[in-house]
Amino acid sequence: MNFKLNEGIEILERTPRTLEGFLAGLSAGWLEGDEGEGTWNAVGVVEHLIEGEKHNWIPRLKMILHDGESRVFPVFNRFSHVEEPSSKSIEEKLAEFASLRSDSVKELKALIVDQDHSLEATGLHPAFGEVSARELISTWVVHDLTHISQIVRVFSNRYREDVGPWKEYLGVLKRTEPS
Amino acid sequence: MNFKLNEGIEILERTPRTLEGFLAGLSAGWLEGDEGEGTWNAVGVVEHLIEGEKHNWIPRLKMILHDGESRVFPVFNRFSHVEEPSSKSIEEKLAEFASLRSDSVKELKALIVDQDHSLEATGLHPAFGEVSARELISTWVVHDLTHISQIVRVFSNRYREDVGPWKEYLGVLKRTEPS
Repeated sequence: MNFKLNEGIEILERTPRTLEGFLAGLSAGWLEGDEGEGTWNAVGVVEHLIEGEKHNWIPRLKMILHDGESRVFPVFNRFSHVEEPSSKSIEEKLAEFASLRSDSVKELKALIVDQDHSLEATGLHPAFGEVSARELISTWVVHDLTHISQIVRVFSNRYREDVGPWKEYLGVLKRTEPS
Repeated sequence: MNFKLNEGIEILERTPRTLEGFLAGLSAGWLEGDEGEGTWNAVGVVEHLIEGEKHNWIPRLKMILHDGESRVFPVFNRFSHVEEPSSKSIEEKLAEFASLRSDSVKELKALIVDQDHSLEATGLHPAFGEVSARELISTWVVHDLTHISQIVRVFSNRYREDVGPWKEYLGVLKRTEPS
């Protein structure tokens, strides 16, 4: 086990600026490119991250700390951003995500007052059953990373043929898992 | 084929700030974590990107445009940063990469004066034989992406066990290719 709260927070705090550096001002060719029908483009990933700040991470952490295993988490709708498309620019969406994430990190720091106790508190996941605050926060961190990785993969695949024989050297082009 | 020079340059210009947002100020736990003996940590990846700016991309592009297929590219040493360790901080390395990349992009724009002609020019790769400027520049873009992806994977794997049952949902933890 490697999780440390302060290190996890370092990643959570950085994701908005990582994505801002990566995505702000890009052409539609990058932002709107996906991996085929039913797959997400970079804009959709940012929308999904916004939904997570609103409805997933902090709300579930609060349930663990306040309700324990007396209530099952509501199911998080991973497709809500697909069902309610937004017309905001990518820069506006990145700013919204940054603002929500900043608030989330403040709440996280306020909620975990006694690490030894709070991180081992457990709640009930609808599919997995018992899960701990430590597992939830670790997952939040890796969830950020998995979606950065997804955008990188989508972008890389746009140039899958363009790289010619170098394809052999480029690990990112060998990944096919939908994440 | 999807490559467009202006879009490729968009990614090349952003990589330094993506990495700055992602890595500057992180704890040693993240920056020095790797995937076992002989694998790279995040600092090593930035060092490798610095080497590429100095010895790989622009030098090879110049050879294609000036020498065509009359000379084979010198082999690029992917391990030179391992052989000559540096004691600079990650922030200093990121700044060095940003400065070199800024110069490289200026050179790239100056070198490709007539896209129709210049992008189809060819040179000789030591392993692949004939390669075009278009393939080289596409590869430069995807090479940036493959190394962002690598850092993300290394970080994710630190929390492989910590996420508990959520492992099942996190695509990035299912990747094992060394890239």
